[in-house]
Amino acid sequence: MRNLLLTLAFRGTAYHGFQVQANARTVCEAFQDAVQRVISRRCDVKGASRTDAGVHANGFALGMKIEEEIPCDALVRALNVHLPPDIAVLSCREVPADFHPRYMALGKRYLYKIWNAREKNPFLTDLAYHVPKRIDAALANRAAGLFVGERDFSALCAAGGSVQDKVRHIHRCGVVREGDLLVLSVTGDGFLYNMVRILTGTVLEVCAGRYAPEEIPEILDSCDRTRAGTTAPAHGLYLDRVFYDREEWEAEVNGLG
Amino acid sequence: MRNLLLTLAFRGTAYHGFQVQANARTVCEAFQDAVQRVISRRCDVKGASRTDAGVHANGFALGMKIEEEIPCDALVRALNVHLPPDIAVLSCREVPADFHPRYMALGKRYLYKIWNAREKNPFLTDLAYHVPKRIDAALANRAAGLFVGERDFSALCAAGGSVQDKVRHIHRCGVVREGDLLVLSVTGDGFLYNMVRILTGTVLEVCAGRYAPEEIPEILDSCDRTRAGTTAPAHGLYLDRVFYDREEWEAEVNGLG
Repeated sequence: MRNLLLTLAFRGTAYHGFQVQANARTVCEAFQDAVQRVISRRCDVKGASRTDAGVHANGFALGMKIEEEIPCDALVRALNVHLPPDIAVLSCREVPADFHPRYMALGKRYLYKIWNAREKNPFLTDLAYHVPKRIDAALANRAAGLFVGERDFSALCAAGGSVQDKVRHIHRCGVVREGDLLVLSVTGDGFLYNMVRILTGTVLEVCAGRYAPEEIPEILDSCDRTRAGTTAPAHGLYLDRVFYDREEWEAEVNGLG
Repeated sequence: MRNLLLTLAFRGTAYHGFQVQANARTVCEAFQDAVQRVISRRCDVKGASRTDAGVHANGFALGMKIEEEIPCDALVRALNVHLPPDIAVLSCREVPADFHPRYMALGKRYLYKIWNAREKNPFLTDLAYHVPKRIDAALANRAAGLFVGERDFSALCAAGGSVQDKVRHIHRCGVVREGDLLVLSVTGDGFLYNMVRILTGTVLEVCAGRYAPEEIPEILDSCDRTRAGTTAPAHGLYLDRVFYDREEWEAEVNGLG
């Protein structure tokens, strides 16, 4: 049995996240449909993470076990022929039999995109959160930086998760402006349920003047979800990259990536 | 009666171009529906150009005559509330009563976007033409430059147009690479039916080795549509800007824009 690691990009708008669910179209199901067309059966697929409905991915990682001899390159091409236009396989490589895409991940990077112009952008409707009022990017960046560190992030965790240990390590968190687009980028060893969206919502509330940036450490210390900002909408969020290579991860963590 | 000039951005995927047509949803019709919601009636609307089905716009210009006193800013906001997510009004200003958005245009700039990576991009499916084979951007740029000049462009004009005079002046035409995205930009005083798409198709055929760049002047001299390249698909094309201001137009033409 071969164990393969694939990278996917998808526009999540039409899907109820990655994970297979009853009565809802998911990325994994669409992927399995393409697999079925290529190797005439479905196979064992494991995602590196769950993603919420409407969330996008520039580099989702997925493990797949198959017996067929088809070379990685040919598999990528064949899957892309059969996948819908909003899902693409970007790469595929062989990994050891015991490789698990979730447990082997050293960390992940998420992006949150905000269209920050008075009028909406028809090309980014479902691809960025529209905030018409001008955001001070320097202030947003300063607020974002205050989330860096290893700590209990219960204050940024939505109810409903089953995880007990809520200590995570955010290595980098910042905001840059690219014209009218604001991009928050956050790299961590792991993330709690809705953590990036709540983090983004909190940064936005700092920018709207609801909190001072200095209150962020207190909010985190409180471990109280109700003290943090509202959850920013799913459609601005991108799983940008999952890190498996130690060298690439160190470069990312040290800001050399 | 007030005469207003509006700038629109739209994602053309769901529309059969701008111009109203029987039995097909068009941008103008969607715009008129929004107007109806705002001022309780439709009004006289004139587009700066026709656009084909599936073509996008970053800066489409539209003239509109209304009697209502509503300020320009309020009109923009109100229209954007009622327009569908794939159409946005970007600006609105008063113009003289005899101003006509088509006849007063000094020129236009179009962009043609090509996603030039082996695998498709799920975020650009209907927003850029996918050419998997690597394109030499320097060659594409050299080929594009050979279209600059004032001449009869019959070789780049699709059948079916009613225009007699096919002399146009292309002031600038070039190609730049932005990562895996190739953008052809062309500025001219006017364009024939499908001209930019045929121009792009010809540049792509030069890059694919079907013609030498040196053959482009001969192809144009022939005034023979069958000698030029195939028409590139609509979904890569953007009406980027319509120029009315003499100073801005001179800056564009002289490459200072």
